[in-house]
Amino acid sequence: MTEHSLPIVRMKPKSNARAIRHGFPWVYDNEMVTDRRTKALTPGTIAVLQDENRTDMGLVAVTPGSRILCRMLDRDVTAQVDQAWFAARLSKALEMRERLYDQPFYRLIHAEADGLPGVVIDRFGDVAVVQPNAAWADARMDDLVAALVQVTGVTTVLKNASGRARVLEGLDDDSAVMLGDAPTAPIPVPMNGAIYMADLIGGQKTGLFFDQRPNHAFAARLSQGARVLDVFSHVGGFSLAALAGGAETALAVDGSDPALELASQGADAMGKADSFATRKGDAFDVLTKLAEEGAKFEVVICDPPAFAPNKQALEAGLRAYERIARLAAPLVAEGGYLGLCSCSHAADLAKFRGACVRGIGRAGRSAQLIHTGYAGPDHPLMPQLAESGYLKALFFRL
Amino acid sequence: MTEHSLPIVRMKPKSNARAIRHGFPWVYDNEMVTDRRTKALTPGTIAVLQDENRTDMGLVAVTPGSRILCRMLDRDVTAQVDQAWFAARLSKALEMRERLYDQPFYRLIHAEADGLPGVVIDRFGDVAVVQPNAAWADARMDDLVAALVQVTGVTTVLKNASGRARVLEGLDDDSAVMLGDAPTAPIPVPMNGAIYMADLIGGQKTGLFFDQRPNHAFAARLSQGARVLDVFSHVGGFSLAALAGGAETALAVDGSDPALELASQGADAMGKADSFATRKGDAFDVLTKLAEEGAKFEVVICDPPAFAPNKQALEAGLRAYERIARLAAPLVAEGGYLGLCSCSHAADLAKFRGACVRGIGRAGRSAQLIHTGYAGPDHPLMPQLAESGYLKALFFRL
Repeated sequence: MTEHSLPIVRMKPKSNARAIRHGFPWVYDNEMVTDRRTKALTPGTIAVLQDENRTDMGLVAVTPGSRILCRMLDRDVTAQVDQAWFAARLSKALEMRERLYDQPFYRLIHAEADGLPGVVIDRFGDVAVVQPNAAWADARMDDLVAALVQVTGVTTVLKNASGRARVLEGLDDDSAVMLGDAPTAPIPVPMNGAIYMADLIGGQKTGLFFDQRPNHAFAARLSQGARVLDVFSHVGGFSLAALAGGAETALAVDGSDPALELASQGADAMGKADSFATRKGDAFDVLTKLAEEGAKFEVVICDPPAFAPNKQALEAGLRAYERIARLAAPLVAEGGYLGLCSCSHAADLAKFRGACVRGIGRAGRSAQLIHTGYAGPDHPLMPQLAESGYLKALFFRL
Repeated sequence: MTEHSLPIVRMKPKSNARAIRHGFPWVYDNEMVTDRRTKALTPGTIAVLQDENRTDMGLVAVTPGSRILCRMLDRDVTAQVDQAWFAARLSKALEMRERLYDQPFYRLIHAEADGLPGVVIDRFGDVAVVQPNAAWADARMDDLVAALVQVTGVTTVLKNASGRARVLEGLDDDSAVMLGDAPTAPIPVPMNGAIYMADLIGGQKTGLFFDQRPNHAFAARLSQGARVLDVFSHVGGFSLAALAGGAETALAVDGSDPALELASQGADAMGKADSFATRKGDAFDVLTKLAEEGAKFEVVICDPPAFAPNKQALEAGLRAYERIARLAAPLVAEGGYLGLCSCSHAADLAKFRGACVRGIGRAGRSAQLIHTGYAGPDHPLMPQLAESGYLKALFFRL
């Protein structure tokens, strides 16, 4: 026990302090003594967490009213959460990304696993997009941005406040330009030999998803000389990688005109406009129509939005994944490849794989499973939360 | 029902014919009517499988006395299992490998998933090593070898009869040269920019394991400028890939002098002999001694033999994995990387990951999980047997 100038919050008797000591990063509200003093704390207050015996456990960010009442920031209760503190965490994260990637396009900070709970930072060359999805970080954006510039040298920092988790933290949804000038045009992003156009102001989320990079790369290896169908293409994730990998043609299907326009711009920038086509529409409808047209592809990839974002949606979500597989399989040429992705937290690998295999079977096809992929290493996981690795990509050969 | 010149074997009433129809490749002895006629069949006999209603289900290989009584060979009961039949399966398998790999070094046939139950074929350029681990294939080696030459053009075919499953099939352990001349020296095998020396006559299993290729590649990406420790190195799988990836030094630890000698020959062939060292000994002992010496490495990889090959060995196996992690973690420099592998069927991903995290925690370190890898795509799985994906590689950053 030491004296602290910071507020102190305390775990209940018999709560699971051991899990926290072993690295679990969150304390839930039902594990905490939530007296009037704790309830009165401003969301995002940094406090000292103590166990039932008043032994210090670490510095935590407190958000009263949130189910995740405390997020562990530092095991050292004497730490100062200032620019230098942010800079140390950013430097450690940067060292890994610079080791893994030739060019500065990656997720730089992946929240808890990179030591900044609730904070996501994506880097697009000289531009960084910060998602401060927890109150403690939202309140310290100035230090965070200063550290980000100090460590990475980025010249533009955008704040993306569209994260749904911000509501739980009592935060607004006001995105902003924190530093420099907002890009006036989509930024070309090189990945896997392809060029993607990221619209960081108008786009979905942060304009481009880095998480599928290794799965794009695997699809590209399958695509030499192939006709490739990329369903739920967004800005062309799989189709442009496939073209870079030598695909003969690629067809991107999405419901969003702006996304398809960005995909086409990417194909243009790669000098592959002649091999690239888009088709706007509901994916289920387009898959059905393509089958009616007798279309065949050597490689088909479906990367749908989360059909099973939570436990309540699990059964319906698995049926939707099965349906996607059933509609996609007939479009795969004999001996061709089918990639099926899920970004649903609630559908674990075995359940998702089961749904895919049922769908393929119902289409009258049989399959080998040749690859199981996850998000890339710029999306690290806390091992204690590893079950939540949400992204799965299964590649089948039919 | 049709008339067959082949023997007929029949499933019991209420047995799970549906699973077989949905692609499960095996019928267990307790699901079959094992009358005197069936019991009298020569191991490896090809028969027609029927369900309880005498409806044909497919051609199966029958091994009376084995728990896996029938292995599905072909859903078409009129198929002839001859050289052309083997050639068709080999061609399909080859097409995928040629798409994925620049050079002819890969697992060509991975048993059930490649349509040849119980058969494993590894290719080393002009040399193929066949493991016929099921009686039906052992009895048809001539057709298989002829097809193999026809499809791939290999000039040497070796039969490796050391597989433990052969005993269950009533087969001998007589390895042999089926075609051409046995190589008189280790064969240089290019993978991930490294050169491995495969001793196809004297070596373990087929002289070289192709399954870790993608995990070797991931380790290589982490290894630029790093000091790398490769524990249970065999012929230098991770250490030579790391050197190819720009490692400053690599130290290979193994209990086998011949394996380390082959690793050194590989480093020589790469022109990296000066950066490469070996240390013979028990891995647990060497890890302990290295810690006493205060040794530090930016990258440490441990790829032990199967500590939990079956359910009975699971608890002890998980303790062994935990111990490896506990002994290895202190050798990892701050911010460095620890790769831990398991080839245990019985330890699933969650259990293995738990053991690793406990070991790292007991060493007083905390970790991010940055990558989960499996065997490469030349080791496809039947989705129905996907739980049995035995190889897991976890990469942590400490």
